[in-house]
Amino acid sequence: MAQSAEAPSGLLSELGERLGDRLSLQPSDLERHSRDESHHEPHPPWAVARCQSVEDVQAVMEVCRRHLCPVVPFGAGSGLEGGAIPIRGGVSLDLSGMNRVLRVDQDDLDATVEAGVTLSQLNSGLGPMGLFFPVDPGSDPTLGGMAATRASGTMAVRYGTMAANVLGLKVVLASGEVLATGGRARKSAAGYDLTHLFTGSEGTLGVIVEVTVRVQPLPEVTAAAVCPMPDLRAAVTAVIQTIQLGVPVARIELLDEVMVDAINRFQGLESEVTPTLLLEFQGAPAAVTEQLREVAEVVEARGGRLERRTTPEERSRLWAARHHALYAAKALRPNARTWSTDVCVPVSRLADCLLETKADLEGSRVLAPIVGHVGDGNFHLSFVLQEGRHDQAREAALVHDRLVARALRMGGTCTGEHGVGVGKLSYLRQEHPSGIGVMRQLKAALDPLGILNPGKVLEAPA
Amino acid sequence: MAQSAEAPSGLLSELGERLGDRLSLQPSDLERHSRDESHHEPHPPWAVARCQSVEDVQAVMEVCRRHLCPVVPFGAGSGLEGGAIPIRGGVSLDLSGMNRVLRVDQDDLDATVEAGVTLSQLNSGLGPMGLFFPVDPGSDPTLGGMAATRASGTMAVRYGTMAANVLGLKVVLASGEVLATGGRARKSAAGYDLTHLFTGSEGTLGVIVEVTVRVQPLPEVTAAAVCPMPDLRAAVTAVIQTIQLGVPVARIELLDEVMVDAINRFQGLESEVTPTLLLEFQGAPAAVTEQLREVAEVVEARGGRLERRTTPEERSRLWAARHHALYAAKALRPNARTWSTDVCVPVSRLADCLLETKADLEGSRVLAPIVGHVGDGNFHLSFVLQEGRHDQAREAALVHDRLVARALRMGGTCTGEHGVGVGKLSYLRQEHPSGIGVMRQLKAALDPLGILNPGKVLEAPA
Repeated sequence: MAQSAEAPSGLLSELGERLGDRLSLQPSDLERHSRDESHHEPHPPWAVARCQSVEDVQAVMEVCRRHLCPVVPFGAGSGLEGGAIPIRGGVSLDLSGMNRVLRVDQDDLDATVEAGVTLSQLNSGLGPMGLFFPVDPGSDPTLGGMAATRASGTMAVRYGTMAANVLGLKVVLASGEVLATGGRARKSAAGYDLTHLFTGSEGTLGVIVEVTVRVQPLPEVTAAAVCPMPDLRAAVTAVIQTIQLGVPVARIELLDEVMVDAINRFQGLESEVTPTLLLEFQGAPAAVTEQLREVAEVVEARGGRLERRTTPEERSRLWAARHHALYAAKALRPNARTWSTDVCVPVSRLADCLLETKADLEGSRVLAPIVGHVGDGNFHLSFVLQEGRHDQAREAALVHDRLVARALRMGGTCTGEHGVGVGKLSYLRQEHPSGIGVMRQLKAALDPLGILNPGKVLEAPA
Repeated sequence: MAQSAEAPSGLLSELGERLGDRLSLQPSDLERHSRDESHHEPHPPWAVARCQSVEDVQAVMEVCRRHLCPVVPFGAGSGLEGGAIPIRGGVSLDLSGMNRVLRVDQDDLDATVEAGVTLSQLNSGLGPMGLFFPVDPGSDPTLGGMAATRASGTMAVRYGTMAANVLGLKVVLASGEVLATGGRARKSAAGYDLTHLFTGSEGTLGVIVEVTVRVQPLPEVTAAAVCPMPDLRAAVTAVIQTIQLGVPVARIELLDEVMVDAINRFQGLESEVTPTLLLEFQGAPAAVTEQLREVAEVVEARGGRLERRTTPEERSRLWAARHHALYAAKALRPNARTWSTDVCVPVSRLADCLLETKADLEGSRVLAPIVGHVGDGNFHLSFVLQEGRHDQAREAALVHDRLVARALRMGGTCTGEHGVGVGKLSYLRQEHPSGIGVMRQLKAALDPLGILNPGKVLEAPA
């Protein structure tokens, strides 16, 4: 088990020989690779390896294997559970330089990219071809990072998460071998599903260096709507009914009144301060009109109203406001940082889970606006924590514990889309008491030396 | 490695003690469990264990582990690649008695069933609740079998395969432990994706005893259409365009002219003998009307025509004819059996793959009508082989070899939905040269004694 506090002697010089100036020991690089967007404690790597090719990754793996040195993949550093933090030192394997879109196929609606390609880069390339990639976590991660964390976001209700959109992967294993999983066929019953095994494995089973994804044709028509609702329960009930009716909404998002208020302040808006649904509809013209009408009926029956946002500018403003929610939350208090956590429950339990969580928050001194991908039963708490206020952090940790316990009690999961990283280790054991053993067996089989992102997903063996 | 030709002494008496009259050594039972619907050589088990509970499965596993006895799960026996054939003897673990629908949730649109519940049984229960299960392989398998083989079928183009529709599994491991994977949340980023690992593992990593699936609301409106096309390429091009336009068809199936002729003869129909597309549309009324219009335009632009089939009776007849295609093929020659195989290629290569395959068939003396789930790039050859005509079987094997080689060369897979079983062992190695090693590592980790369905998916180690 790789646990050394310092780089083993000879490691850095050997890496330097193999990588040349693609190996960095610069303090600013080490600092940049010591953290992600989460609240988890930073920890610097011993070195940053800026890989430009599969061969670079293999070279790092080969040297690290001999030195039992941790290998921690790093993409955009936008993770929210510390998955890319080198908590035991080692090499931060920076894949952002592997950023070529290798192919896009307009007939087959798929694309293959190097792991360091960012979501915005992929979509910039796809747009002029009449295509888009429908997994939208709201930040601008790399495709490798999205695959590694099984990311999802606002459009998963319609198009699924990364689990549904990754067709195949290229992975450098701990042994240094290159594994190609999946393929370009839309489906296959050929052997064990290695694509899904590595999707969401957070760099602990191998380093994803290439991703083949499904892409979608840009819809003929897109429409959006904002629905202020009388209360949280009415909002969630409207969501459940919409899903039950089979209305194929592209996005259905919830902001609680605290978050609406935060966005109003941050963006200078004057939206009604009440739980609010944001929706998007995509498809052929008559279908979109029909969907808008169906949802309007559902929303009005629950005492809400549906306001259309038709122009591209209105829609951009709407989704920009949604995507900046975390910054809006942060701006609620001076000298604050945010701790964003997510759980996901069966949709039928979402109203109960949200209301109990709200009550818990209101009985505490913790400020935490809520946003949710409610069509999936997934929601986020963004704890707003001020510098030096350890009392806030302590109380947030207790609220967080109770949040996860509540989600698990309701048949849900400790993380819908952020991953386990270092933040959800103990919860994963609670959620999958029988699965942990199997996960450990798989880890031991594929990474017998324990060099791949140690301390993530699975706790260190006792 | 369990390879004995005869039951180890003591095995059967110990199993009898544990299972009582649920253990059968009756020749008729052994015969029934010696084969599936495939052409693969039957092989009887040493005994049939009719499990009624998870505890029964655990008891069988415990005894078999001590005796290094193969454990071969058996559901409806409807497999097409020999997955349930006890090729090395052992116990046929019959799960058809575990046939309770444990729960259906109309709010969450999911259901949990025991592994022996059949597709028709599940849908009979769901229908009155306004729900249905959208994976439709055409026969009437058990849900356990469908999960174990990663089945799909006609509606995968819209709703995905079993991979997309299984939310969680309960599995009895080789150790006898019960593993619960996944959960009821619509998505999760919590740890390794064990659900997908076991889905499609064909009983070689564990015995699936319970399946939680997504279900769908019955569509408001369903419409169907038959589209006779001038030739195969026109038919496939129309399919590609339909998918590219983003028309959310529920089914889009192809019959070649040989299959249309076979169905005409079998069912006493008079359809035009030409490559034909069968379509189904589901959704809200305006959306379905719009989809019909869009597809009609695409089809007519390629020289075909779209004939609507609107009444429920017309639709039932249409899909019954499709589902009886294998019987229609069999009836083409006297004393014939069929050998049904499937491959799947990127949709862009489908026309080439089909046309090259047709040319190969026409240059041979092999009769093999073609049907395809063409929206996925998946198609089936049904070789019609007459008893005693070893020349036909030999030539079919050569055509089959070339078919798979062609699919792999075009970036496809050796099986889109039937699984590997015993029929695609060597092709799996060709398709996943780098994956085979990892699959073996996973198998060794989870089934170190090699008792779980030995000889399936992965060839015996050299």
